Amino acid sequence: MTGHGGNIHEASRKTGIPPERILDFSASINPLGLPKPATAAILKGMRLLPHYPEPNAGSLTACIARHYDLAPESLLCGNGSTELIYLIPRVLRPKKVLITAPAFSEYERACTRSRKSEVTCQKLTREDNFAIDPDSFIRSMRDCNMAFLCNPNNPTGRLLGKKAVLKIAGAARRRRCYLVVDEAFMDFCPDETVMQYVRRNPYLIVLRSLTKFYALAGLRIGFGIFPLKVAQEMKKYKEPWTINSLADAAARAALQDSGYRAKSLATMQREKRFIEKSLRQAGISFVPSEANYYLIRISNASAVIRTLTRKGILVRDCSNFAGLDEAYIRIAVRSRRENAILMKELSAICAGS
Amino acid sequence: MTGHGGNIHEASRKTGIPPERILDFSASINPLGLPKPATAAILKGMRLLPHYPEPNAGSLTACIARHYDLAPESLLCGNGSTELIYLIPRVLRPKKVLITAPAFSEYERACTRSRKSEVTCQKLTREDNFAIDPDSFIRSMRDCNMAFLCNPNNPTGRLLGKKAVLKIAGAARRRRCYLVVDEAFMDFCPDETVMQYVRRNPYLIVLRSLTKFYALAGLRIGFGIFPLKVAQEMKKYKEPWTINSLADAAARAALQDSGYRAKSLATMQREKRFIEKSLRQAGISFVPSEANYYLIRISNASAVIRTLTRKGILVRDCSNFAGLDEAYIRIAVRSRRENAILMKELSAICAGS
Repeated sequence: MTGHGGNIHEASRKTGIPPERILDFSASINPLGLPKPATAAILKGMRLLPHYPEPNAGSLTACIARHYDLAPESLLCGNGSTELIYLIPRVLRPKKVLITAPAFSEYERACTRSRKSEVTCQKLTREDNFAIDPDSFIRSMRDCNMAFLCNPNNPTGRLLGKKAVLKIAGAARRRRCYLVVDEAFMDFCPDETVMQYVRRNPYLIVLRSLTKFYALAGLRIGFGIFPLKVAQEMKKYKEPWTINSLADAAARAALQDSGYRAKSLATMQREKRFIEKSLRQAGISFVPSEANYYLIRISNASAVIRTLTRKGILVRDCSNFAGLDEAYIRIAVRSRRENAILMKELSAICAGS
Repeated sequence: MTGHGGNIHEASRKTGIPPERILDFSASINPLGLPKPATAAILKGMRLLPHYPEPNAGSLTACIARHYDLAPESLLCGNGSTELIYLIPRVLRPKKVLITAPAFSEYERACTRSRKSEVTCQKLTREDNFAIDPDSFIRSMRDCNMAFLCNPNNPTGRLLGKKAVLKIAGAARRRRCYLVVDEAFMDFCPDETVMQYVRRNPYLIVLRSLTKFYALAGLRIGFGIFPLKVAQEMKKYKEPWTINSLADAAARAALQDSGYRAKSLATMQREKRFIEKSLRQAGISFVPSEANYYLIRISNASAVIRTLTRKGILVRDCSNFAGLDEAYIRIAVRSRRENAILMKELSAICAGS
């Protein structure tokens, strides 16, 4: 249960620095913070806290369906998309599952814990900048009943274009292999989503998170789009009341805030240019990223991480990702002030080594 | 996923009455509302919402351990105790499970969904006022690998004394049958908990909720006390980040508020006297209750429920509880103002019928 980024609580205990003063580049969260309407909705929602939330988040589901033009019956909300990552293998019971290496580690944990599924890895290589080759992925899907594709991938930030994903989804359908596309970071490149294609493919599942783009990680909220038959089956097994009422209210409000979305994308574009330039100047190699984080490679990564942590700067040690060696670090794109601090520290460390 | 009380959102949609104006006797929540320190903790905690919660709620676990004098290693927090009700059969995989009828319906759903466990019922009867007979329960445990005991029972409010529960726990141990004692409403009769006995019995599990007594139903927070070996096994399977950071902060603050606890118990005692007296005067029969709700019997219950709902008063229709016929209604103990309104309505209805 450890080994993820974003544990500012643990870092605070270890360093003695209060959580709010830690610069957290280890979790990839929108640096703009909560959309204002979400904050207002949380404050307003507090009066209803003594009441149970809606058992299945019906109002939020309807709101998401309208916002993304999806059929409400095909949607399930979760206590973070993590709830759905665990529910999917529990309900669909795949014998053999394909996962890329590296990828978000909860896919494997969910599959092996839920059903003792056999997990096979599609290795992504440094030489290819960790790109996913659709044809090779399709070949690896052979004999699999389920495949997880994180797009953009975590921790690399690499995006597989919509056309390539749909090619894989078509092959998955022919092979009766469920393809779970985790679009947790897709809000940062919204045109590449395959959400709309779920209704035409009974083997395609898309997961989305609202915690990264809308900075709601502490409240937990995600959703999934499922083929109708799969959605019905999932609902039979889903636990009630998993979405707390403040997450529900905040998510509904956040989706209405198109100004926040525009500002977030502009900020991200600007800050990514700044970070890429700084990394190049410092001679630090990084993987091209379409998400709000970068996978960087530094030979003495573990010493760098220790140095940064002592200064209250958290980055994601990627040595525990299957398929990565100990030289990798993932850094989130934050505000200019924070990014400048991290780039300065990294440049100094790399110049000195 | 439906068929529970407390869905003010659905009631609001059906009646057109705003959620905050509905009088909700269908969910059994402390009428005092959130403890003030919990409200303050939520407001203060909002600044940390962009960050992930602690993956395993370590600080809250430590806080609960200190408060109740329990070993922290034996504790798991959940997204409501519901998360743990589902996790237990998934991890311990019982073939045959004993559940009382009536009882909280999620036990059966959790067992049949998780493992296709066979469920056998210990029928509680109206003639005995739905009392649980320990010897009869022990006999029914034969051949079972797990038994659920809700104490005080939901929806009856009947309490099985500590001595009787420990007798059943002893028998469970001898038979290697896990006894899950759900003490979701035990804060209303705190001396009868068997939490402290888990450390001496490798087959005893106790579940607690913080959502009823501390009026945190919307935020979801519960915990369980497990024998150490079982706790270790549960942790292998538990999903990360299930406890949102506001629930975490609110629960820690609530536990510090001993004044709130004293006031809640005094209010409850006073209001229960008022309700019992009113029900007797109206000639409405009720089951003796140690919890913050009453199971009452009215011949034309479904018509009564419809009449009340139209007036914005929700009560719990108990016709879908296994072991109860359609004449049963559960009503929560609320504030004097609210209780007086409900008692007046019920008296008028019963006088007119």
